[in-house]
Amino acid sequence: MTANKWIIEDTKFEVNNVKETIFTLANGKIGVRGTHEELFEAETPGTYVAGIFDKSEAQVKELVNLPYFWGLRIYIGNEFLNPLECEILDYKRHLNMKEAAIYRYLKVKDKKGRITIIRGIKFLSFKKRNLALAKYEITPENYDEKIYIEHFIDGTTKNSKKNPAEKVKHYKLKNTKVSNDYIYTEAHTRESHYKVSIISFLDCRGNKISKDLDDSITQTVEIFPKKGEKFSVTVYTSIISNREIENLFTENLKELNKAKDMGFEKLFDEHKKELERLWKIANIDIEGDEKADKALRFNIFVLLSMGNPDDEKVSIAAKGLHGEGYKGHVFWDTEIYMLPFYIYVYPKAARAMLMYRYHTLQAAINNARKNGYKGAQYPWESADTGEEETPKWGEDYYGNKVRIWTGDIEYHITADVAVAIVEYLKATNDWDFFLNYGFEILLETARFWSSRVEFNSKKERYEINNVIGPDEFHEHVNNNFYTNFLAKWNILKAIEYTNFVKNNYPKEYEKTIKKVGLTEKEIKHWKEVANKLYIPWDKKSHLIEQFEGYFNLEDKKITEFDEKNMPVWPKGVDLSNLNNYQLIKQPDVIMAMFVLPQEFDDITKKVNYEYYEQRTMHKSSLSPSIYAILGLTIGNHEKAYQHFMRTALVDLENNQGNTEHGIHAASAGGTWQAAIFGFGGMRIENDTLSFHPWLPKHWKSMSYKIIFKENIYNVFITNQNVKITKIPYLK
Amino acid sequence: MTANKWIIEDTKFEVNNVKETIFTLANGKIGVRGTHEELFEAETPGTYVAGIFDKSEAQVKELVNLPYFWGLRIYIGNEFLNPLECEILDYKRHLNMKEAAIYRYLKVKDKKGRITIIRGIKFLSFKKRNLALAKYEITPENYDEKIYIEHFIDGTTKNSKKNPAEKVKHYKLKNTKVSNDYIYTEAHTRESHYKVSIISFLDCRGNKISKDLDDSITQTVEIFPKKGEKFSVTVYTSIISNREIENLFTENLKELNKAKDMGFEKLFDEHKKELERLWKIANIDIEGDEKADKALRFNIFVLLSMGNPDDEKVSIAAKGLHGEGYKGHVFWDTEIYMLPFYIYVYPKAARAMLMYRYHTLQAAINNARKNGYKGAQYPWESADTGEEETPKWGEDYYGNKVRIWTGDIEYHITADVAVAIVEYLKATNDWDFFLNYGFEILLETARFWSSRVEFNSKKERYEINNVIGPDEFHEHVNNNFYTNFLAKWNILKAIEYTNFVKNNYPKEYEKTIKKVGLTEKEIKHWKEVANKLYIPWDKKSHLIEQFEGYFNLEDKKITEFDEKNMPVWPKGVDLSNLNNYQLIKQPDVIMAMFVLPQEFDDITKKVNYEYYEQRTMHKSSLSPSIYAILGLTIGNHEKAYQHFMRTALVDLENNQGNTEHGIHAASAGGTWQAAIFGFGGMRIENDTLSFHPWLPKHWKSMSYKIIFKENIYNVFITNQNVKITKIPYLK
Repeated sequence: MTANKWIIEDTKFEVNNVKETIFTLANGKIGVRGTHEELFEAETPGTYVAGIFDKSEAQVKELVNLPYFWGLRIYIGNEFLNPLECEILDYKRHLNMKEAAIYRYLKVKDKKGRITIIRGIKFLSFKKRNLALAKYEITPENYDEKIYIEHFIDGTTKNSKKNPAEKVKHYKLKNTKVSNDYIYTEAHTRESHYKVSIISFLDCRGNKISKDLDDSITQTVEIFPKKGEKFSVTVYTSIISNREIENLFTENLKELNKAKDMGFEKLFDEHKKELERLWKIANIDIEGDEKADKALRFNIFVLLSMGNPDDEKVSIAAKGLHGEGYKGHVFWDTEIYMLPFYIYVYPKAARAMLMYRYHTLQAAINNARKNGYKGAQYPWESADTGEEETPKWGEDYYGNKVRIWTGDIEYHITADVAVAIVEYLKATNDWDFFLNYGFEILLETARFWSSRVEFNSKKERYEINNVIGPDEFHEHVNNNFYTNFLAKWNILKAIEYTNFVKNNYPKEYEKTIKKVGLTEKEIKHWKEVANKLYIPWDKKSHLIEQFEGYFNLEDKKITEFDEKNMPVWPKGVDLSNLNNYQLIKQPDVIMAMFVLPQEFDDITKKVNYEYYEQRTMHKSSLSPSIYAILGLTIGNHEKAYQHFMRTALVDLENNQGNTEHGIHAASAGGTWQAAIFGFGGMRIENDTLSFHPWLPKHWKSMSYKIIFKENIYNVFITNQNVKITKIPYLK
Repeated sequence: MTANKWIIEDTKFEVNNVKETIFTLANGKIGVRGTHEELFEAETPGTYVAGIFDKSEAQVKELVNLPYFWGLRIYIGNEFLNPLECEILDYKRHLNMKEAAIYRYLKVKDKKGRITIIRGIKFLSFKKRNLALAKYEITPENYDEKIYIEHFIDGTTKNSKKNPAEKVKHYKLKNTKVSNDYIYTEAHTRESHYKVSIISFLDCRGNKISKDLDDSITQTVEIFPKKGEKFSVTVYTSIISNREIENLFTENLKELNKAKDMGFEKLFDEHKKELERLWKIANIDIEGDEKADKALRFNIFVLLSMGNPDDEKVSIAAKGLHGEGYKGHVFWDTEIYMLPFYIYVYPKAARAMLMYRYHTLQAAINNARKNGYKGAQYPWESADTGEEETPKWGEDYYGNKVRIWTGDIEYHITADVAVAIVEYLKATNDWDFFLNYGFEILLETARFWSSRVEFNSKKERYEINNVIGPDEFHEHVNNNFYTNFLAKWNILKAIEYTNFVKNNYPKEYEKTIKKVGLTEKEIKHWKEVANKLYIPWDKKSHLIEQFEGYFNLEDKKITEFDEKNMPVWPKGVDLSNLNNYQLIKQPDVIMAMFVLPQEFDDITKKVNYEYYEQRTMHKSSLSPSIYAILGLTIGNHEKAYQHFMRTALVDLENNQGNTEHGIHAASAGGTWQAAIFGFGGMRIENDTLSFHPWLPKHWKSMSYKIIFKENIYNVFITNQNVKITKIPYLK
């Protein structure tokens, strides 16, 4: 590991799908996996554009793996220089997080003894999100031969490349044009009819040949460098889609020409400037713990890579723009795990993400109606239109079909969106958003819950039965604590804000109430539901039962941990019947305490933490960060640090074993929250900030910034001191 | 090297384009390069169907690299089992020449320690040339996991894959259909509008999924084998084209179903039976020299793989169906180097090859007319229609355009075709062919020469100026010996056969003469031309000048040889001005003595052999075999053996350095001729066979068979004895 805190380093040249994820570049609009140019066929390249989904033969809509536009092949004479058949004399790849750029140095010797050095820089512009730039310097170290540089855009990419049963080709290339000045093609998605326009230009001295090869397009230069003489190659690419504009060819050619006119260096400069602006607030420094410091920074880098203030019709997927896990769908992960980062660090991106929920509100209303409910039921998995995209069927190890129930009954997502609306408002004072959009969501979600509950006349209470809570080991449970508690909170917040808006913003109130069709009678019913909604919380013992009957299940505690410090299944557990045990996948009761900390006293937090922590298998990457934060709240510091490192390293150390399918975006958000709300101890109490930090002994200091309402708070923490300064936040 | 004389063995699993050529399977109709299934992307797969050419953006028509139909990928769970990322525990690949089948055994251990054994057999049926069969046995040696077997037909193959400047995609996939019972697609060539229909079926227990992935089609089975339990996979493929039939889908589905009904074993049996029938005559045994024995057999195997008695509209390309060198074009190589093998071993194939020249006779007549001549001028390079396909431009090392003149002025091909007609007739007595087709060719070629000559009134002679002879180091020469000598021979033979046919087959004579429009006056002119055609042959000194002025060129002799025993350029030679030296690329005067041995006495052969041998660089694979044969004729035995081994090993040892681009088909034919006409000493003298063998000392014996007229001659030679038996040849 290099000592430079901004650098993630790779020193082994190899086919490695995990590193493809880690070295992904993304700018909120485009994501390109960190595939080596030369290993295009052997690895799992991925090129994604936010919002471009298609179903075709897939079970559900997927974020489309679009044509790969960063293809580059070097030929010495007519021999393709394939590093896999060469001796690797030297290799280094750096992800420079400060610059959001990949630097690569590769020195290879082919079978004929010819040594070639290839240096490259790549970035996806944060300033002009449609632009992708790559620049190479190539040196024929010890030979004097003709070299071809072939840049290609490959149209054979498929989703689920490594799963022949699920593999789908989602697009066809259309309107391909090649000339000396550009190569151009469009990927038209087969069912959803999106059109993604890609234009590219290879800037290099030498004879140029452009080719339409049907499934790919290429631009080649023929060069006769002298031995030892280095030459440079720049690839300009612009990607736009019919989500933004209709006249694709004309507009994209303009974009390309503007980029060429500016040149690589200026484009790189303006990109770095934008990054500098973002890092100025986003960066967190931990002195005394290099590993934690860098791991945390990587998670922040991932978060920065996914946000996009300019597009309010997309949101962030569970695997970011970094891979195809979960099909590019948006889950509660976005609002509960990731959004706080954006709220406090990149509020314009946060607003755009919430606007995505507003633009899909009608779809959520339709979804509720389809299921026999009122209001807005947000889909468990959401793509471009906001319809429910959860697959109905999965497969167990033996190829047997297994029904997936989350899309049907994991309702809490709807309350999670409501929580996000309120948290955003509290931190930003963005009443414009709230009054025009957020308030409406709050009302429609409250309305959903009020229609979803069932009245148990025997027990004189409302219940929410047959659900899945955050802990997905237990399906079809009744009165899940997290679900019921957040549903109640959602209804109460809707009532509270209805009153507040009515009194303070009567004009906006009228507009929204009219649109939503809310009556006094309905509000009365909401109050009744909230009052009588059953919450399985024994206030005397402080211990909360995750759902009705949970405490009667067989109780196996975790006692062993593997080499990655992850829990080992207790002996005798039947993995095909997890419904029968108290073991949980991820926090549920504890989750409620994390989401709504002000609703629980310290002793309750402590009692429940201690109970559930021993029973949590962390089979979701959403789990450890929550235990880190709660652990710090209740004073379990040592374990909190372990949990923090687990979540911070989830991708860098691939400790969930599935990083190849994309980044753990929720875990990245969870890591940031564990740093800020956990070690950094930031809380909102009575609408103001307070800080109760705790640092591990070996940490000398921690410093971070957050934006709260009109100010940027600069927080510097040592084990002796907390120093807070604030400056106005200029939006 | 395995001791089994029928086996060519490969023991190293690697990306290797030379081995792809050597392990090519071909059956005269289809050729598939020996690409490893798993290395499809990294190697240079080639799938060719005889007669399917297309130009599109290429400089000239090319034999199209069609969709690759032998794709197979194994996935353990959802991980592609890529041997390049595995430890290769064991590997062996055999080309079984007796069976024209590839056997492969591969045992690999992946990064997770899972060991998989893959055994495979593949063949292209010699009995039903449209069928391609592959069978695998797969064993998950030490694991118990779900396995996917994905069979694919890939439609992204391109010509000149490794040359980005020349790369062309010649077809588009059309009419793709997938079902549980087959996957089907058609490759439609873009400019020539051929349609090649490919249908395939993956036979394996398990759930089957068929997919149209736009640029490829797949059939996948999901299997849950037990640890150590082997399972089998058979792929049935049938390939037909609109060259044969119009109703492609219906007919090819029938073909597939017939094949499935018969099953792999029976199809393999009938294929092997056909091979046995061919080998019965074709095989040559050399006792006492394993290396020579096997190398010779490999060349015979290659020749058998290229012949096809059932298709008289195609002929054999310079690189066979084994690669893309020379674009799949037919040269004089076919008639002069390869055809004798077919004449004496596989006469039905020989006839089909000559019929190709008959079917392209009109194109040759058009070609002559276009160039201002009469009669038939055969193209230097010929493809499907018989038009001239030689590229006009090449590129030198520095990317400068270089004019290629062979298509304009390497005229001797026309006489070479005439030679082949006469040789075929003499050996087979196939008067049916001669009277209906061959005679017409003989007349039109004679007519061409009579119009091509120029009268030099000063010297009172006919000349043929501005030509390239077989030795291509010297361009734009006047009165090349080989050209003039064969032109004269061509005219004289035409006159001779005109008389003979007139006297013996008057009806056929009338028909042909009428068709050709031949008059007594024209024949008189032919005689005049033949009499006065200048032949640069000083009968006193015996030494023949390759062309006028050759002896005045700077004379550098070859004195050094490289590690492959190939000549090294003499010091001081300027490679950019080879016209200035007596050094030659390949035999020219000696070539005439090889083609028409009866026209030269022994002393002339010896004098010229000794002169030219020292000046021949063997920069063509067509060279060594000729020196082997002539060497044996004149008694230069030791060098003859060296030349024989050079030509026999040209591909197995890649001694021309370009085997990756395809097999050296002419060299294969030359090897056979060196064996039979050289060591085997077979000659036709006065229309009967005679034998003057000579064997190297370490050869214990040599045995071969040839078909001559109505008999099969079985020849057994030792250093003491020649034993000849004959049995009737049943056509």
